[in-house]
Amino acid sequence: MRTIEWDSGVVRMIDQRKLPHEYVEVEFTDYRDVARAIKEMYIRGAPAIGAAAAYGLALAAVHSEAGSKSQLVADVRIAADVLRETRPTASNLFWALGRMLARLEDESLRGVDQMRQALIAEAEDLAEEDVEVNKQMGQYGAELIEDGYNILTHCNAGGLATVDYGTALAPIRTAWKQGKRVHVYVDETRPRLQGARLTAWELMRDGIPMTLIADNAAGYFIQSGKVDLVFVGADRVVANGDVVNKIGTYKVAVVAGENGIPFYAVVPTSTIDLSVESGDQVPIEERDAEEVTHVRGQLIGPEGVRVANPAFDVTPHRYVTGIITEHGIAYPPLAKSLRALCATKKG
Amino acid sequence: MRTIEWDSGVVRMIDQRKLPHEYVEVEFTDYRDVARAIKEMYIRGAPAIGAAAAYGLALAAVHSEAGSKSQLVADVRIAADVLRETRPTASNLFWALGRMLARLEDESLRGVDQMRQALIAEAEDLAEEDVEVNKQMGQYGAELIEDGYNILTHCNAGGLATVDYGTALAPIRTAWKQGKRVHVYVDETRPRLQGARLTAWELMRDGIPMTLIADNAAGYFIQSGKVDLVFVGADRVVANGDVVNKIGTYKVAVVAGENGIPFYAVVPTSTIDLSVESGDQVPIEERDAEEVTHVRGQLIGPEGVRVANPAFDVTPHRYVTGIITEHGIAYPPLAKSLRALCATKKG
Repeated sequence: MRTIEWDSGVVRMIDQRKLPHEYVEVEFTDYRDVARAIKEMYIRGAPAIGAAAAYGLALAAVHSEAGSKSQLVADVRIAADVLRETRPTASNLFWALGRMLARLEDESLRGVDQMRQALIAEAEDLAEEDVEVNKQMGQYGAELIEDGYNILTHCNAGGLATVDYGTALAPIRTAWKQGKRVHVYVDETRPRLQGARLTAWELMRDGIPMTLIADNAAGYFIQSGKVDLVFVGADRVVANGDVVNKIGTYKVAVVAGENGIPFYAVVPTSTIDLSVESGDQVPIEERDAEEVTHVRGQLIGPEGVRVANPAFDVTPHRYVTGIITEHGIAYPPLAKSLRALCATKKG
Repeated sequence: MRTIEWDSGVVRMIDQRKLPHEYVEVEFTDYRDVARAIKEMYIRGAPAIGAAAAYGLALAAVHSEAGSKSQLVADVRIAADVLRETRPTASNLFWALGRMLARLEDESLRGVDQMRQALIAEAEDLAEEDVEVNKQMGQYGAELIEDGYNILTHCNAGGLATVDYGTALAPIRTAWKQGKRVHVYVDETRPRLQGARLTAWELMRDGIPMTLIADNAAGYFIQSGKVDLVFVGADRVVANGDVVNKIGTYKVAVVAGENGIPFYAVVPTSTIDLSVESGDQVPIEERDAEEVTHVRGQLIGPEGVRVANPAFDVTPHRYVTGIITEHGIAYPPLAKSLRALCATKKG
């Protein structure tokens, strides 16, 4: 199952807002619709957003009427500006746009058709690499999972948050395939319920044992000794190892630490942003009040109630046991180990 | 506004399950209906459950056809057994039943009519005292609130959790009446959303500034320095100072402690159970999966998903800054200070 794919000039993606109640695929030919789909969370999860942005630029190139290289570059850059404004937190969005724009600068590309083909190929490579990278993280992460382990996860960092296979769910899937018995506690993840809607759905499809819990219950299970490991994805990991992830991750990490339970973020190096020193410098998206006040269209509180709805929080690196990447696991001091792993990538 | 009241042989209460969407009062003349109302959470909150149980026994006495004292005692004891089985965690339930049954043992009561009148009077006293006690806690607690403070609360420990005025909300109400500017962060409190449905509604009615947040966001606001104090109620506080309260309280307390933010439980001494040594000995109620899987009748996850739904958790006393009671504030070592405050009660 691919969260997003390219089909001769069309981008097809699952409309995740409707899961698990309906499985609907949507198709876009205009990059502006892809931008809207990112903003409105048809597609979400840092790596999936990266892939969507890359495919968005491929769409912009394919459907641009530019007859000259400079005009095509200008058109694609406009599209990149639109896509860049969709969501402020996830690292992969900026990384994917940067990678695609860099491809355009290849002097050897002759003419607009070659440039269009190059952008399509680059987006396809990026998406394909995402799946490979997830499987590599799955291998590294699975080594931490012993037979019979209970793993807690927050939000959805599964196949649906990526092109396929997932980040935090990758080690769990790999361990399960290796024959290890695992069980996953799934935080429902208010306000958008990505845990209840997406992670639960993915794990049930795979037949991996799981229990859905209210976010409030995570502390109870950690404290009761019923959780062996915490695995989460991330929207951005910064140079000092701070983990920016779905709102509520911070509370889970602190409570895990307090109880001596290892807390790992599972991220491709494309999610690691060494240009930012610490988590407090990352913009935290504030989303619509309605995400809190309404569930499936039903008002849950008083009419007109004042709401704050930050979508992410920062888990300071001191609560992070390690960062699992496709090049191995970074352990503290994370400022040093992350830099080394990211250099692997470039090497 | 009274959460529950007695009106010549009828118990009237607000059906809190319907708030804030509908304000509905229900009337019961059969103690078994009161028991059902406690179980199904028409009424909830430790002190309100205590009052409901007391009124339930008054109903049992009034509507019993017993012609002899011993038959009336037997009938009331049967009712107490039914009421005792409704909810396992809240201390006030057992305390109120004990107080009512003790009243029955008064040898000076002559005949069944006097006994009936004595039980009604005892229930009325208990309810009236609850309001007084809340106001006293409000006075003590308000001393901790400075002008401009932001206070975080979890679940509903307001007027609706008591006969009137509230436990955790009492100091906030008192400070507000004293002219202090306060602002309350209200955790929505999944799964039953008592924060979004009840606390938000109460504070809005009073015009006290508040912001509703997903439970997941509490850590973010505490970490960002936007919370000065945490006030919660409790279902039971035990001898060593451990606080048993609505699921999710533990995470809030740990994160508050980690950030140096004071965490107080506000409870009448009737919620303090010195007969239990530590929190891990208190039974934690497991409630229906449907509370997690459905919001206002709408399924939020996959059909048939496995759920765990513990209704309470234990905050170990080391995370508790103090316990605010009607006799003053207990500070660590809580094992000693709580015992002293409870002795005040009996003195």
